[in-house]
Amino acid sequence: MNKTKITFLGGVGEIGKNMTAIEYNDEIIVVDAGLTFPDDELPGIDIVIPDFSYLLANKDKVKAILITHGHEDHIGSLPFLLQHLNAPVYGTKLSLALIENKLREHPKVKLKGVAVKPKNVLKLGSFVVEFIKVTHSIAGALALAITTPSGTIVHTGDFKIDYEPIDGVMTDLTRFGELGRKGVNLLLCESTNVCRKGFSMSERTVGRTLDGIFDTHKNNRIIIASFASNIYRLQQILDLAEKYKRKVAFTGRSMINVSEVGLKLGELKFNRDNIVDLEKINKMDDKEVLIVTTGSQGEPMSALTRMAGGEFKGVKLRQNDLIIFSASPIPGNEKNVYKVINALYKLGTDVIYDELAEVHTSGHACQEELKLIHSLTKPKFFIPVHGEYRHMKVHKELAMSLGMEERNILIASLGMQVEMTPNSIKEVGFVTAGQRLVDGYGIGDMDSNVLRERKQLSEDGICVVCVNINNIAGEITNEPFIITRGVVYDNEQEAFVQDAKASIIASLKEQDLRGVEPSVIKSTLRRNISNFIFKRTKRRPMILTIVTLD
Amino acid sequence: MNKTKITFLGGVGEIGKNMTAIEYNDEIIVVDAGLTFPDDELPGIDIVIPDFSYLLANKDKVKAILITHGHEDHIGSLPFLLQHLNAPVYGTKLSLALIENKLREHPKVKLKGVAVKPKNVLKLGSFVVEFIKVTHSIAGALALAITTPSGTIVHTGDFKIDYEPIDGVMTDLTRFGELGRKGVNLLLCESTNVCRKGFSMSERTVGRTLDGIFDTHKNNRIIIASFASNIYRLQQILDLAEKYKRKVAFTGRSMINVSEVGLKLGELKFNRDNIVDLEKINKMDDKEVLIVTTGSQGEPMSALTRMAGGEFKGVKLRQNDLIIFSASPIPGNEKNVYKVINALYKLGTDVIYDELAEVHTSGHACQEELKLIHSLTKPKFFIPVHGEYRHMKVHKELAMSLGMEERNILIASLGMQVEMTPNSIKEVGFVTAGQRLVDGYGIGDMDSNVLRERKQLSEDGICVVCVNINNIAGEITNEPFIITRGVVYDNEQEAFVQDAKASIIASLKEQDLRGVEPSVIKSTLRRNISNFIFKRTKRRPMILTIVTLD
Repeated sequence: MNKTKITFLGGVGEIGKNMTAIEYNDEIIVVDAGLTFPDDELPGIDIVIPDFSYLLANKDKVKAILITHGHEDHIGSLPFLLQHLNAPVYGTKLSLALIENKLREHPKVKLKGVAVKPKNVLKLGSFVVEFIKVTHSIAGALALAITTPSGTIVHTGDFKIDYEPIDGVMTDLTRFGELGRKGVNLLLCESTNVCRKGFSMSERTVGRTLDGIFDTHKNNRIIIASFASNIYRLQQILDLAEKYKRKVAFTGRSMINVSEVGLKLGELKFNRDNIVDLEKINKMDDKEVLIVTTGSQGEPMSALTRMAGGEFKGVKLRQNDLIIFSASPIPGNEKNVYKVINALYKLGTDVIYDELAEVHTSGHACQEELKLIHSLTKPKFFIPVHGEYRHMKVHKELAMSLGMEERNILIASLGMQVEMTPNSIKEVGFVTAGQRLVDGYGIGDMDSNVLRERKQLSEDGICVVCVNINNIAGEITNEPFIITRGVVYDNEQEAFVQDAKASIIASLKEQDLRGVEPSVIKSTLRRNISNFIFKRTKRRPMILTIVTLD
Repeated sequence: MNKTKITFLGGVGEIGKNMTAIEYNDEIIVVDAGLTFPDDELPGIDIVIPDFSYLLANKDKVKAILITHGHEDHIGSLPFLLQHLNAPVYGTKLSLALIENKLREHPKVKLKGVAVKPKNVLKLGSFVVEFIKVTHSIAGALALAITTPSGTIVHTGDFKIDYEPIDGVMTDLTRFGELGRKGVNLLLCESTNVCRKGFSMSERTVGRTLDGIFDTHKNNRIIIASFASNIYRLQQILDLAEKYKRKVAFTGRSMINVSEVGLKLGELKFNRDNIVDLEKINKMDDKEVLIVTTGSQGEPMSALTRMAGGEFKGVKLRQNDLIIFSASPIPGNEKNVYKVINALYKLGTDVIYDELAEVHTSGHACQEELKLIHSLTKPKFFIPVHGEYRHMKVHKELAMSLGMEERNILIASLGMQVEMTPNSIKEVGFVTAGQRLVDGYGIGDMDSNVLRERKQLSEDGICVVCVNINNIAGEITNEPFIITRGVVYDNEQEAFVQDAKASIIASLKEQDLRGVEPSVIKSTLRRNISNFIFKRTKRRPMILTIVTLD
């Protein structure tokens, strides 16, 4: 039949939470299994994972899970998926090590990891998968060329092009070109930075900026915050430590974990003798110390945030400290980051962050880099991935500006199934897909009552009213209980409760309570107290009424 | 004594909510009375105003309120201040008109407005106040030169420098220079964009970009969203409507209000015959229509957001529509804006926004503009205002880079009082100051129970438990009531309630309830149910227990 089906379970119409299934007859390979972190629209939610019930319904077909790289939005839902599904996971050594790290918190989940390298070619059932080196803001990142009986699919994963790569190996442009010459049927290309003109800045430029800062701050103690997973950044920071003869102390759980993994795998190169425990630094000269920490996003519980608040035991900040944020705030984190920067300035420390100097670069391709990949792979068909709708739309226009015909481009949405033949792609339907909310031990959906209730509670609070009625005598037999939370300000509390009670009693006395059902009394009560509160506060809190009968 | 006191009641250590009091003997003049809008840290709060109890305690001293311009962060708390304090308000005609607009919702508040113009000089008690023309993202913006017996204070208000001002009158650089030559004792200068290098883009550049867009979209219906108060932007948009022979329909309450005020005062120039009611546009050719709307920040209830959701009666969007966001997302609004853009793209309309073209410029001075004002006014002393701590810190460094000595610069914080003499500035203490939260009819403080409770409710939900006990017989006399909100997902609800009841009954049966006080039972109950829920959900919701005695 020569038909391959591609099912989008994540990563289209949103940044993060990537997951794509590629299916031929009764074989499925999955590309990535990511998560996203909730925003303020999802109060109390820990993480958001894709609804992968399609994969569970087709459990036996899943032959392999391919991981492009070890970022959370590509590996984060693996612990949940592997609970139900025992397929082998293919990725670079670093990706697998990071997955193993995650799985420590899920001891029941077993990982069948298969380490692969760039240029490896594997036959997985009807598919032939080739792994291609790409540069990204984490080491060990791969693109995929998946040859199916209906043609070759190139999936870029996340990538950028850097002519001065820190690990010395560039995004394998030649291989993309060779694949293009042989014929790429479908390109799935990431879209994160498609709205940014030009070329992304080289990671080396960040290194040069940092070098200048180290040079002009020789007598300061330096504390540098970055993404723990950004191994290349870490390598440059360690190189500077060596150059400027500073000992390095790592702090923050993920920073300690990742640096350990990186050193063990040889992805990070540094003389271990120059790593010191955090406890030692207080006895050392400021100019001999470099602290590498988490907290570049202003995360409330991170090491740096606690240092800024004076609540971190290991490091007491002082005026001679220089703090460098070698990261940009991820959209949504700006306020938290700036809160920490303000606090640091108030302590009298010096602070350098991305608004003030080139101390960070993105790991995602900008417009000219994307054009290069399109031009090298020359795909017959194109589906933009990894982006909100607006990114996919602009990416489509970018492809058209390079001469691609509109009918050969498809914008996918969550759950969409696309059928690929050597001469066509077309949407053939939708499977169940969406967001699953991990909330403590519970897992819920976007439209769950829990979220709606939390939102109402957070905006207007709650009022609980409890009365006891003797509906034979037709009397209230206790003083009504009224408890509010999140409704009335302290100084008004007492008068409020008193007046509310009076209002309830008055309204109940107006009616003949003899023989009345509690449910009827409850709804009268609810209406009465809701109106009372609205008149008083202009708010409509959630009302819970409890009516007991004597 | 020659001492002037400056009290910072808002605008230092934060963007927005500006308010400064300048005091000599028993006379106070107030500069600006702004508000901020709450972020997600303040659920259910409408607006945030300064705590101005210092002014109320010194009511009789307040001789005047000077308004630099009509943005909410400079006029928004006036309705609340004027409820208690009857001082005259000085501002340009447009500022006063916008204040009057606001006061329509506060019919009890009377405004004694005094219209002023640039170059006006007024004697207000011991002060001489001169109003200076500045360019900002609203017309009618003023800086102030306030001559006190202890020297002249220049307060920039919000400003930028634009060599091609839309109204033809530039920020009055010459006057700043003349004041500098005569001697400025203290400069209070805004700091919003102090982290941005170079010069802000001219408003004309936006006009030229828009002209190009109108030119290449002659056959499309055009819908343009902008800040209603940005009169200069509006003027350029109206000029393009005239040039491209389009009729203009305004929509969105503030857009209709402000355009009406602008036309009436002559701040906006446009042939009224070319304004049409929104109802008429459906009968007109696409190429004849320009809709000017609110909603540039993705505000959920705004006209544009409702159009994007298909919920706006007046305008049904279609594929031939072009929507222009002539505004940048204010930090914190990005997600909402992109949500609307994604929805618009999905409808098939074309969208242009600031990431894709130069359709917006800031109204605040960048580094080179700030340097120009410092260099012209050559103040003896400097206090940066209108910024978070980090902005004020960078502004301090900017002043030092121009040769100012560190000891002549002071970074203020909320409530700080600074004493100025001809030869000194120094902090002399603090007055009550901070954030007041307007919440419906209530007004609360940052540390109020209401906010803490709403936050806990929003993250973990609430559980209400109600049991009736006969503590003579030592029995539970009803089946316990359990109500949860925001805790348990739908499919688990029934089993949860059943198990919770069983757990409560079991724990109560373990103890001898005879003669026990309800308060003791309540605390046992609370501990029991809290642990039960944590084990089950990994969450600690708020627990309310109600124990009644038979």
